[in-house]
Amino acid sequence: MKKQLHPKSHRIAVLAEGSFGVLESKTATVLVRYLPDNVVAVIDSTKAGRDVNDVIEIGEGIPIVRTLGEAMQFQPTMLAIGIAPPGGELPPAWRAILHEVIGAGLHVMSGLHHFLSDDAELAELASANDVILWDARKPPENLPVATCKAADVDATVILTVGSDCRVGKMLSGIEVTHAARARGHNAEFCPTGQNGIMVWGWGIAIDAVVSDFTAGAAEQIVLEGAKNHDLLIVEGQGSLVHPGYSGVTLSLLHGSLPDAMIFCHQPSRATVARYTVPLPSLPQMIAQYEMLTVPIKPAKVLGLALNCFDLSEAAAREAIVAAEAETGLPATDVVRFGAEKLVDAIQKVHREL
Amino acid sequence: MKKQLHPKSHRIAVLAEGSFGVLESKTATVLVRYLPDNVVAVIDSTKAGRDVNDVIEIGEGIPIVRTLGEAMQFQPTMLAIGIAPPGGELPPAWRAILHEVIGAGLHVMSGLHHFLSDDAELAELASANDVILWDARKPPENLPVATCKAADVDATVILTVGSDCRVGKMLSGIEVTHAARARGHNAEFCPTGQNGIMVWGWGIAIDAVVSDFTAGAAEQIVLEGAKNHDLLIVEGQGSLVHPGYSGVTLSLLHGSLPDAMIFCHQPSRATVARYTVPLPSLPQMIAQYEMLTVPIKPAKVLGLALNCFDLSEAAAREAIVAAEAETGLPATDVVRFGAEKLVDAIQKVHREL
Repeated sequence: MKKQLHPKSHRIAVLAEGSFGVLESKTATVLVRYLPDNVVAVIDSTKAGRDVNDVIEIGEGIPIVRTLGEAMQFQPTMLAIGIAPPGGELPPAWRAILHEVIGAGLHVMSGLHHFLSDDAELAELASANDVILWDARKPPENLPVATCKAADVDATVILTVGSDCRVGKMLSGIEVTHAARARGHNAEFCPTGQNGIMVWGWGIAIDAVVSDFTAGAAEQIVLEGAKNHDLLIVEGQGSLVHPGYSGVTLSLLHGSLPDAMIFCHQPSRATVARYTVPLPSLPQMIAQYEMLTVPIKPAKVLGLALNCFDLSEAAAREAIVAAEAETGLPATDVVRFGAEKLVDAIQKVHREL
Repeated sequence: MKKQLHPKSHRIAVLAEGSFGVLESKTATVLVRYLPDNVVAVIDSTKAGRDVNDVIEIGEGIPIVRTLGEAMQFQPTMLAIGIAPPGGELPPAWRAILHEVIGAGLHVMSGLHHFLSDDAELAELASANDVILWDARKPPENLPVATCKAADVDATVILTVGSDCRVGKMLSGIEVTHAARARGHNAEFCPTGQNGIMVWGWGIAIDAVVSDFTAGAAEQIVLEGAKNHDLLIVEGQGSLVHPGYSGVTLSLLHGSLPDAMIFCHQPSRATVARYTVPLPSLPQMIAQYEMLTVPIKPAKVLGLALNCFDLSEAAAREAIVAAEAETGLPATDVVRFGAEKLVDAIQKVHREL
């Protein structure tokens, strides 16, 4: 969990060739959202000449360019790979681009499953050009099996959980952390996935950890965060009803042993994305999480973070009211309406501990 | 999942130095139990001169010897590493023994986390001596994310689940498979851990798989087993209340998508082994498993396999009656009283599908 290549100390060109603004370039969007002062250009020849804000409604003033060569005029010191394809492999066409990038003396930040630093050809080239290949997804060596140590930290631990992947567990975590800091709390966001790590500068991508040690990795993240902070917002992963990733989700729950949870959901979503699995009701999903905490360290869901990006403002407000009525818990869309309600609920838990 | 070094075609010396008969040598015990015609000697200088049966009450006629040199008189063709220490590392003192073993021309079968075949020194030595280092725990390359394909197989799929590690999920699975075969079913045991793989000759150690792909590995095991069998007994791992391994357990549940489950438990156990976590009641633990199957593919627990090895026969019978009363499900100790009750319950599910 060393702070290698902290992104906030770099001028970043983001590679999102052919897919900026769509789901596959979630990483690019996240970098623009949380590192707007560091991202100097986005590379996507299919949208070149436009402003980032025209495509994703954030990042005003950041240009989209055709090539690395064009991006170089903005003097980047780092290239960030801005896509996260399923499986995480390096698209073959990108190898040539990486040769060019490394040859131009840029460091590379990647969240791919395929570790650039383990790729003999790229590693040699990076060494020859004195640049670092930082694989945000590469876990540290010698992670332990979890031993419930996270239950002993003095910090209040909040975990963002949810109904599915890509419903806002990372984003809600960061927004809540910002809002808590604005109220004077010594709060820290604890990243558990490559995108969070790339914007926040530390963490462990727990889905890249061997399963015996996944909960242990989550435990390490909490122990690390608790060294210097008294309120931790741990980034959740996956969902208990996700056929592929539910094990990651439960490892994170039992490794981080939160004091309370924030439940994240996209109201317009009825099935697990890319699967035909229907999502249970909010109370059913919340009950699953709470029930699984009981034997080890009981924790409740304290509020809901609803991702209403695809709803009108009126529909978003309706969805929030409906979710509050259905669950009896405070709900918000942190991007649209702020995280204040959730910080209120966290403060209550924090004071009680 | 290639059948490398199938243990049933070898004469096996089992290394259990210093720990034969205790918990750390579970692998040695399992090999003696299920490969009694293949194990020719157990190496443990602290118990040398005794018969295996004197120590673990099975394996009559198999000698315990002081050294590899002594074991060689029984003409082994393979050495099996018979311990599974927490963390799975290779104890330094064993490196010298492995040099001797490989030098003597024996293949090596290992379930350690530390892969012998990735150890440059040992791999080179093995190559020079033309022997195979088989790491039963080493997962295949390119495992997929799970996609619910296991739900589509024609075979009836039964998963052994349980209250904790080391309560008999592997052993019950093998005993049920044997009993089902004895009744004419085309049944297959599907190993998911190194010990099962070492006695059965195929499978994937899912706890050694990167967590994003752990459910995918479980799915692959079911697809493989279903190719030639119509009743699969999938070996469970860990427990939903185990702080370290619960994620592995849930990955296995959602990857294998069983039609029904067998719940394994040791009646004398009140807390998760090596932890202070109290075990919930049987109905509570069963409800957790069943609830987590509901959103994807509902499955019920059909019976209980109780591990009563530390109880008198009278106490074991009492425990079985009590568990049946508490859960309303058939229960047995498969080692002591056979697996017939469970096969009866499986046949009912099997016929209904």
